[in-house]
Amino acid sequence: MGPGPINCYPRVLSAMSTQLIGQYDPVMTGYMNEVMSLYRDVFMTKNQATLLIDGTSRAGIEAVLVSCIEPGDKVLVPIFGRFGHLLKEIAERAGADVHCIEATWGEIFEPEQIEEAIKRVQPKVLALVQGDTSTTMLQPLEHIGEICRRHDVIFYSDATASIGGNPFETDKWQLDAVSVGLQKCLGGPSGSAPITLSERYVDLVRGRQHVEAGIKADHHNAGNGSRIRSNYFDIPMILDYWGEERLNHHTEATSMLYCARECAINLLEEGVEASIARHELHGKAMLAGIQGMNLAPFGDLRHKMNNVVGVYIPQGVDGEQIRHQLLHDFNIEIGTSFGPLHGKIWRIGTMGYNARQDTVLHTLQSLETLLRRAGHKLQAGQAIDSAFSVYSGKG
Amino acid sequence: MGPGPINCYPRVLSAMSTQLIGQYDPVMTGYMNEVMSLYRDVFMTKNQATLLIDGTSRAGIEAVLVSCIEPGDKVLVPIFGRFGHLLKEIAERAGADVHCIEATWGEIFEPEQIEEAIKRVQPKVLALVQGDTSTTMLQPLEHIGEICRRHDVIFYSDATASIGGNPFETDKWQLDAVSVGLQKCLGGPSGSAPITLSERYVDLVRGRQHVEAGIKADHHNAGNGSRIRSNYFDIPMILDYWGEERLNHHTEATSMLYCARECAINLLEEGVEASIARHELHGKAMLAGIQGMNLAPFGDLRHKMNNVVGVYIPQGVDGEQIRHQLLHDFNIEIGTSFGPLHGKIWRIGTMGYNARQDTVLHTLQSLETLLRRAGHKLQAGQAIDSAFSVYSGKG
Repeated sequence: MGPGPINCYPRVLSAMSTQLIGQYDPVMTGYMNEVMSLYRDVFMTKNQATLLIDGTSRAGIEAVLVSCIEPGDKVLVPIFGRFGHLLKEIAERAGADVHCIEATWGEIFEPEQIEEAIKRVQPKVLALVQGDTSTTMLQPLEHIGEICRRHDVIFYSDATASIGGNPFETDKWQLDAVSVGLQKCLGGPSGSAPITLSERYVDLVRGRQHVEAGIKADHHNAGNGSRIRSNYFDIPMILDYWGEERLNHHTEATSMLYCARECAINLLEEGVEASIARHELHGKAMLAGIQGMNLAPFGDLRHKMNNVVGVYIPQGVDGEQIRHQLLHDFNIEIGTSFGPLHGKIWRIGTMGYNARQDTVLHTLQSLETLLRRAGHKLQAGQAIDSAFSVYSGKG
Repeated sequence: MGPGPINCYPRVLSAMSTQLIGQYDPVMTGYMNEVMSLYRDVFMTKNQATLLIDGTSRAGIEAVLVSCIEPGDKVLVPIFGRFGHLLKEIAERAGADVHCIEATWGEIFEPEQIEEAIKRVQPKVLALVQGDTSTTMLQPLEHIGEICRRHDVIFYSDATASIGGNPFETDKWQLDAVSVGLQKCLGGPSGSAPITLSERYVDLVRGRQHVEAGIKADHHNAGNGSRIRSNYFDIPMILDYWGEERLNHHTEATSMLYCARECAINLLEEGVEASIARHELHGKAMLAGIQGMNLAPFGDLRHKMNNVVGVYIPQGVDGEQIRHQLLHDFNIEIGTSFGPLHGKIWRIGTMGYNARQDTVLHTLQSLETLLRRAGHKLQAGQAIDSAFSVYSGKG
């Protein structure tokens, strides 16, 4: 019940134990095409360029940024938690001239603040996290795309922590690039990073296309822009591997592709809206339960992600001791925190396969037991009653 | 029966469907330590820095190269096939001044040629493929480490295609960095890249350590060398994630870690020497069978890898048609080729789970059938008899 990685859906685990097939077997390339189509529905986009980066979610971030950033390009990163710092760091290493605005951890940005910074910095790219698990905040994105188009800025968002559990609409919100991971609300393991890219983004990076030597003797597409600084994350080459050209790049991580495929099928069978509603319900029940045991939630609750809650560790309680007992005695993991929140809050997730009534109730009962025994003042049973009130529609 | 990816060992497939555990659960960190220990035995090394890069085998290559190369550093790449071109390309994108020597495809380098080039170029790093599936050649490495130490050169090898099926001894051969993948003789899927690094290599990259912002408020290790150009492939940070520091970097790809662990356990239970002997036996049987059906093998057979053979497509036969029929009618895949060999040779693998007598015999029978029906001159049954001669010790 941490902020991810979380338990996988059993069907996703099973999918990974399917025997491999050859890299260019028509069944395999058919699966690749199917995965592209499935993730278009997950991302709510018509983008042709929708595919997997073989690595963890930060591999997806780095692929998107390093492929579009040429050294010296200005990038604007509004930071409201740890993962904003990560976007800044990755952009810097790609050679960007990075400009940041920062929000206090636990808060988000208003569109006006972002537009003001865009006007001032005039960046090529805006890189913005949607859901930052470090603070549990969900940055509203619906008005940002329009601002970016108006100022001719490429709009990229990392939605790893939020997708599937909170609304996300790539095309409607006019995003140019989105990257995610499987290990949060999609209910898979870390290790595959689905991305989607607008035509605008693809046109930009196609200008830097350089085909690998030794691949295709007669391929004269030498590119006219500066060479992308990474081979592994070179999106034009990855597009030619996933596209009709089928030019060899990496060897696709077949088992993780089966896994990413199953995560998407699982989500779409439930329905994106139904999945978001389920995350909202169990997130509300968890929050009510937390408040019911006399604990204070962290941050601006109007902008909390559905799938994770930050909880102030109460005075007089050893936060790490409670986490250890929860894991050791009850087999339940909850999360610690990073940076300025380290040692101050726990983070409790309700996501993917773990966004269920039984997991919420077990977690609340167990945490209440441990806090009572640690001397924290609470009214016994109030946490679980508060959660049940949410489930019965009275919360 | 292609040059990889190949069928997985069933136990490796099963391992991937194990339920996830939390990133810092003691069971998980215990598994990480166990994986480090297992791969020390696979690589035949005492290197503490032995771990997984979360990505395909070229992710391991890029991590090793981008972490040790500072822009302008000289790198020497002896190229004897496609994957030499890949090392060149990755080193160039990391900012290196890359110098190459080239061997004709189907041949390897003598140590004197490499030493002569080292004297001339005076590189910081020598990057050399051991087994290049594009040509089926196995570059002898046993005398190269001593040369590199004498000239103070960092010695890196990519042994993805060869490890587990051909001798490889990291410490004895004085290698500083090695990267591999699972999808060849280790019998797993692509998607995890085990690497091992000498103390010399680690000391070098520790000089470029820069801890990520937002991770540890009080961490003042700001580094004194130039910042590594990639966050995802920053080996000093990855070492601190796998080491006692347990500083958060990526979220380890848990299912692929289970998988890499099972690949190593499987290899070590068989025994590294026994696995190499098995690959040698079935490789010899396949080669004998190929020659028995009046087909010519490609390249210098004294330096062929045990686990793959190149086969000239005979005159008058449509190579792609045969490959299609093998897959469609017999459910057997063999490989096509890259670059200068494209359309000229097939590549047939006997590796990992597919290095077995039954798979060799089925492949030979099926290929013979298709070639006979396509009008290729051969003596019926000679292929299988030649293979049986190898198995009975008379080949």
